[in-house]
Amino acid sequence: MRWWGWGVDERAVRLPAHALDLLRTELGISGERRPHVTLEDVSLPEPALPERLRVRLARVVGEENVRQDRRARVEHAVGKSYTDLVRIRSGDGSSAPDAVVLPGSAREVEEVLAALDEHEAAAVPFGGGTSVVGGVEPLRGGFRAAVTLDLSRMRRLAAVDRSSLTATFEPGATGPRAEALLASRGLTLGHFPQSFEHATIGGFVATRSAGQASTGYGRIDELVRGVRLVAPAGELALRALPASAAGPALRELVVGSEGTLGVIVEATLAVRPLPRARRYEGWSFRSFEEGREAFRAMEQAGCAPDVARLSDEEETRVNLALASSGSLADRAGRAYLRLRGHEGGCIAIVGFEGPSDDEVARRRARAATHLRRGGGLPLGASPGRSWLRSRYSAPYLRDELLDLGVLVETLETATTWSRLDELYRAVGRALRDALAARGTPPLVTCHISHLYPSGASLYFTFLARQERGSELEQWRAAKAAATEAIVAGGGTITHHHAVGRDHAPWLTREIGELGVEALRAAKERLDPRGIMNPGKLLPG
Amino acid sequence: MRWWGWGVDERAVRLPAHALDLLRTELGISGERRPHVTLEDVSLPEPALPERLRVRLARVVGEENVRQDRRARVEHAVGKSYTDLVRIRSGDGSSAPDAVVLPGSAREVEEVLAALDEHEAAAVPFGGGTSVVGGVEPLRGGFRAAVTLDLSRMRRLAAVDRSSLTATFEPGATGPRAEALLASRGLTLGHFPQSFEHATIGGFVATRSAGQASTGYGRIDELVRGVRLVAPAGELALRALPASAAGPALRELVVGSEGTLGVIVEATLAVRPLPRARRYEGWSFRSFEEGREAFRAMEQAGCAPDVARLSDEEETRVNLALASSGSLADRAGRAYLRLRGHEGGCIAIVGFEGPSDDEVARRRARAATHLRRGGGLPLGASPGRSWLRSRYSAPYLRDELLDLGVLVETLETATTWSRLDELYRAVGRALRDALAARGTPPLVTCHISHLYPSGASLYFTFLARQERGSELEQWRAAKAAATEAIVAGGGTITHHHAVGRDHAPWLTREIGELGVEALRAAKERLDPRGIMNPGKLLPG
Repeated sequence: MRWWGWGVDERAVRLPAHALDLLRTELGISGERRPHVTLEDVSLPEPALPERLRVRLARVVGEENVRQDRRARVEHAVGKSYTDLVRIRSGDGSSAPDAVVLPGSAREVEEVLAALDEHEAAAVPFGGGTSVVGGVEPLRGGFRAAVTLDLSRMRRLAAVDRSSLTATFEPGATGPRAEALLASRGLTLGHFPQSFEHATIGGFVATRSAGQASTGYGRIDELVRGVRLVAPAGELALRALPASAAGPALRELVVGSEGTLGVIVEATLAVRPLPRARRYEGWSFRSFEEGREAFRAMEQAGCAPDVARLSDEEETRVNLALASSGSLADRAGRAYLRLRGHEGGCIAIVGFEGPSDDEVARRRARAATHLRRGGGLPLGASPGRSWLRSRYSAPYLRDELLDLGVLVETLETATTWSRLDELYRAVGRALRDALAARGTPPLVTCHISHLYPSGASLYFTFLARQERGSELEQWRAAKAAATEAIVAGGGTITHHHAVGRDHAPWLTREIGELGVEALRAAKERLDPRGIMNPGKLLPG
Repeated sequence: MRWWGWGVDERAVRLPAHALDLLRTELGISGERRPHVTLEDVSLPEPALPERLRVRLARVVGEENVRQDRRARVEHAVGKSYTDLVRIRSGDGSSAPDAVVLPGSAREVEEVLAALDEHEAAAVPFGGGTSVVGGVEPLRGGFRAAVTLDLSRMRRLAAVDRSSLTATFEPGATGPRAEALLASRGLTLGHFPQSFEHATIGGFVATRSAGQASTGYGRIDELVRGVRLVAPAGELALRALPASAAGPALRELVVGSEGTLGVIVEATLAVRPLPRARRYEGWSFRSFEEGREAFRAMEQAGCAPDVARLSDEEETRVNLALASSGSLADRAGRAYLRLRGHEGGCIAIVGFEGPSDDEVARRRARAATHLRRGGGLPLGASPGRSWLRSRYSAPYLRDELLDLGVLVETLETATTWSRLDELYRAVGRALRDALAARGTPPLVTCHISHLYPSGASLYFTFLARQERGSELEQWRAAKAAATEAIVAGGGTITHHHAVGRDHAPWLTREIGELGVEALRAAKERLDPRGIMNPGKLLPG
């Protein structure tokens, strides 16, 4: 993974000329490129790891697994949020950990935490490092040092229970590795967040992630059956059970704990037979509202596809403009939409996976009934294929946009169907107003990406010209305005990005003071000294 | 509700002669009846409510809603477990509350708790009083008095959100009342535990209950979207959200809290359109194992019905014997099963509900494919109708059996499919061995009643001749043996009855010491003096 951006160099994206023109026109950017600093130019604080602690850690995990070199520290200094990248690209490595430790087993995690607890150093669990909310940035929280626990060595598929359709993973297995290990057994987890290629099982569980196919496969919190957490105060082992009435569900305390209670060392997840057939396709709706109501009807009738995404008018417009090839097929497509009264409308992607073509066709037919009834126009498989090809490419595009001086950020929420429209409008308005007020009027696009019987998620992307020298203030103004609108509108402060550092100030608005106190109480019991991922999740 | 048993007198059940003969033969009971004591003969402790507290409570809820009369105290002295009934029938009212308070609003609950907290009196929330694990028995927990909060006045349907398919209830609405209020709006909650007729929304949520149709409609924990808890330390209000990644799910701390954290004053639940069609039917399998595998295949293929129950060979035998009318149809049915090689096999009930006959037929056809493939033989709608008629009658039969000196108890667990058979055998063996060792060899029957992709529940019923004078010791021996077998076999100590008083000693085996500590920490924060339902859920 590139320390200053996303993924690997070979898959870097360059904006085509017509896309750059669009951004020039709509955002007022110059088109001039501003590269990031070199690795050597990143400024790092002196490592503050006491030598006695270093020696003890090395005894636990081996010398080669205690890293203090420049690359290791920079690679673990930040996650992959917009502000993380703005800072690291400019050479600000002030948040780098004092050391990166790579434990190889749950036992080693336990011993590492014991050492850190005794030496009063902060412990920062790190899976794929893909947090977009500041979840993996080492904050000291008043401790003398911060040590990142990189879990990439713990990446085994520990057990498969074929008859119960569960698989037990160590936390460091990345999405592709987990899927490859399962695929060789004819199984899949079906969890495909945009960060899939680098994110890990432990990260999924720690952040309550939702994948692109979670409408069908379920969010990670719906897939976790059992979990083991190593905390400074001991181990919390919750065995895999299909259901239980034995009091509050402690599994739900560990899931979403974001490294603040301990390290997730194992998770048992529901898996499914690997699908043998799939169909992804596009639909058009005359408006976002029309599409939303069709999606609601489909979901509430129990006919939802595995992937269901509906772009609003603006996202549809921008996507079409960016993708436009000017080809004959392209123009014919637009003419068709115009003819059917769908010009300026919204495009949806729906995807079905299953054991056979017949089964997929059967499900598709049921969903299609609702989509047609709701005003939808089928666009065939081509938009579906196109979406599948580019499903993980947005973070690459972000690197390109950062080079071009574009503020590019996403944020997400969810609420009930009855409040969805109002929330959608309020958040869009808040972003547009906040950025226009700074002289950088944005493009704000949105899609619905996860359906539930009682509501849906909203995923916003906004682009604006960066304010040179005030990039972080500019972002903070937009983020604060959007989050205030979310809280006021009855949305959750995060549907799948988690709380981390960025949403922590709003957690009290989400769960109330007593809710925060309940979490604090649990944390104090599991992590009495408070060394686990300080400054995250809980408000300061 | 009868204070010494279940339900109302008009629906009392008398065992037919052939059934009584069967119990005489198989359990060795005499057939002699032993009635319960009269209300006047129940011994009650002197009420220990300080007069100042009584006056203050009356100021909050009104004089008429602070009850200290004999009937009110006896009716709230115990729940409806076997041991509860054995004790109260014998005249032991030692656990009666010092007063029963009936708050009329969340605000009154808040003020009642403030008064009890200040006066250091235990607070025992009480919905329908149907707990079978000692959940509503007032225990003092070292406090000077115990006051039951009967929530039956708080029974409003506070809001319906049609577009999001949610309904917000006060806690005291009983199952039938909630369904009637929803039905008038064309909706249903679809939650039908055996206690349905008397249990309440608040009780469902507080105990993580599962209803008979939860395979299709989902357990209550899957239906709760938002919840409000009034605790001594304040209010925890979690708004209705379809999903969230905002840290640990606190909703899952409230759901299943069994009155130990506070009083659930409101719950927002997912509802569905009232089904317009249904089909319930019987199937036969040659063995429990064969039926279990067919159920697993059906569930894992996503084709499960709303109700799915599979009796083991013994339950099938006893049910057939008890229901046997000796009629021609009856004998013809048996001959048919014999002819098809299903004699001595297992009967299953599967039920489908939906918006139309077509939709029900479509679902039924898909499920039937799996049941047939797994060796199932369809028995038509008659067994389904018969099951529907008697779905809530078991507790009435229990009263009759208690009159006849029969130990009659149920217990339930759940585990993964891969461990289900071993657990089934181990629990049955433990019950048979424990009771045989006391000279009262039991009938032990079992059914699978809730299906999940990763496992299923097991519901055991056991009958034995009561040991006169040692009824409670006899029960304790059987219960302890079964629960040890459950814990050792990887089952949960309770799938839907909750923990209460009876399962609390085993909670540590379920969630570990650190898990118990995490719960204690949350409780101490929400209920600093520990007045909420002492002696329940958490081990002593």
